[in-house]
Amino acid sequence: MSRTLSIALVHHPVLDKQGSTVTSAVTNLDIHDLARSARTYGCASYFIVHPVAAQRDLVARICEHWTYGSSAQRIPDRKEALTLVKPVPTLDDAYASFGGRDAVEVWVTSASAVRTPVSVAAARPLLEGEGKPVLLLFGTAWGLLPETIRAADLSLAPIHAAEPSGFNHLSVRAACAIILDRLRGDRS
Amino acid sequence: MSRTLSIALVHHPVLDKQGSTVTSAVTNLDIHDLARSARTYGCASYFIVHPVAAQRDLVARICEHWTYGSSAQRIPDRKEALTLVKPVPTLDDAYASFGGRDAVEVWVTSASAVRTPVSVAAARPLLEGEGKPVLLLFGTAWGLLPETIRAADLSLAPIHAAEPSGFNHLSVRAACAIILDRLRGDRS
Repeated sequence: MSRTLSIALVHHPVLDKQGSTVTSAVTNLDIHDLARSARTYGCASYFIVHPVAAQRDLVARICEHWTYGSSAQRIPDRKEALTLVKPVPTLDDAYASFGGRDAVEVWVTSASAVRTPVSVAAARPLLEGEGKPVLLLFGTAWGLLPETIRAADLSLAPIHAAEPSGFNHLSVRAACAIILDRLRGDRS
Repeated sequence: MSRTLSIALVHHPVLDKQGSTVTSAVTNLDIHDLARSARTYGCASYFIVHPVAAQRDLVARICEHWTYGSSAQRIPDRKEALTLVKPVPTLDDAYASFGGRDAVEVWVTSASAVRTPVSVAAARPLLEGEGKPVLLLFGTAWGLLPETIRAADLSLAPIHAAEPSGFNHLSVRAACAIILDRLRGDRS
């Protein structure tokens, strides 16, 4: 028995290179890759947070194509992953689906350490046993806002190689996969 | 001191859904994501194996755009990753860059276990110390051919969640990231 784990990919508010708050565009392979990783590691939901209705509609149409359309016949396993996808306008809407902000534990992942981080290895046992559902936030573009990170319940430490490479620019598709594997992967 | 690790993304020969041998198309985000993961985990080279010259030229043009073009100014760290990319026509050409097939240890990753696999955890210490360079092959489409897997020196076991989810369809971008992290990630 372990706690329910969900993920959210945030397109707003996120930072751009200059540190301004922006809204990023939906990327098709973010929908697929994070859904496939979420399904592999037993996540309950994959929220795609986007304030623009046309972008949420695009996400819904892509998921529909793979769940009911011609691609559902061609690659049937994909629908199992994409049924986890829930487009929502804001993070508050994602929280609301758990019963509100107080009903969910929000974990953030951030390439830079804005606050005291917990290593993913130390966070892994926290998912065992009883407890609130956990929602793991990933930022697009240049990442989540400092205030989003500060408002979270836990901040996961950045991912590094054992021999430091001085390079910390994984794609969000790679970072999500690695963090889910570190939290929930088999260790045999 | 550890052995040199490189990766190769194979577009031919790979399997399609029906088990026929096919050639897959280059996917832009495969170039970026695997290069960024390779750079993060200190890989020496990232070979993109494609028999079609126009596809290799496309890879080279994309890398050039991010190494010397306008995007090199916009996201300078990307060039550090993309300079690892080496488009080659065949796997033999990748082997030749090490001095031939006998000069390199070929490891395969495969979602299905065609031969007796070694867990990634058991393979990790094999990268320590002295030894031939290791080249880790990833297949696109429905994966590497059984003969490619049999001809390898080592086959890594498929990735699973600790609590089996019955779903084993990670994207190659996610699978490569997870395997590099399991082989070379920090364990603190």
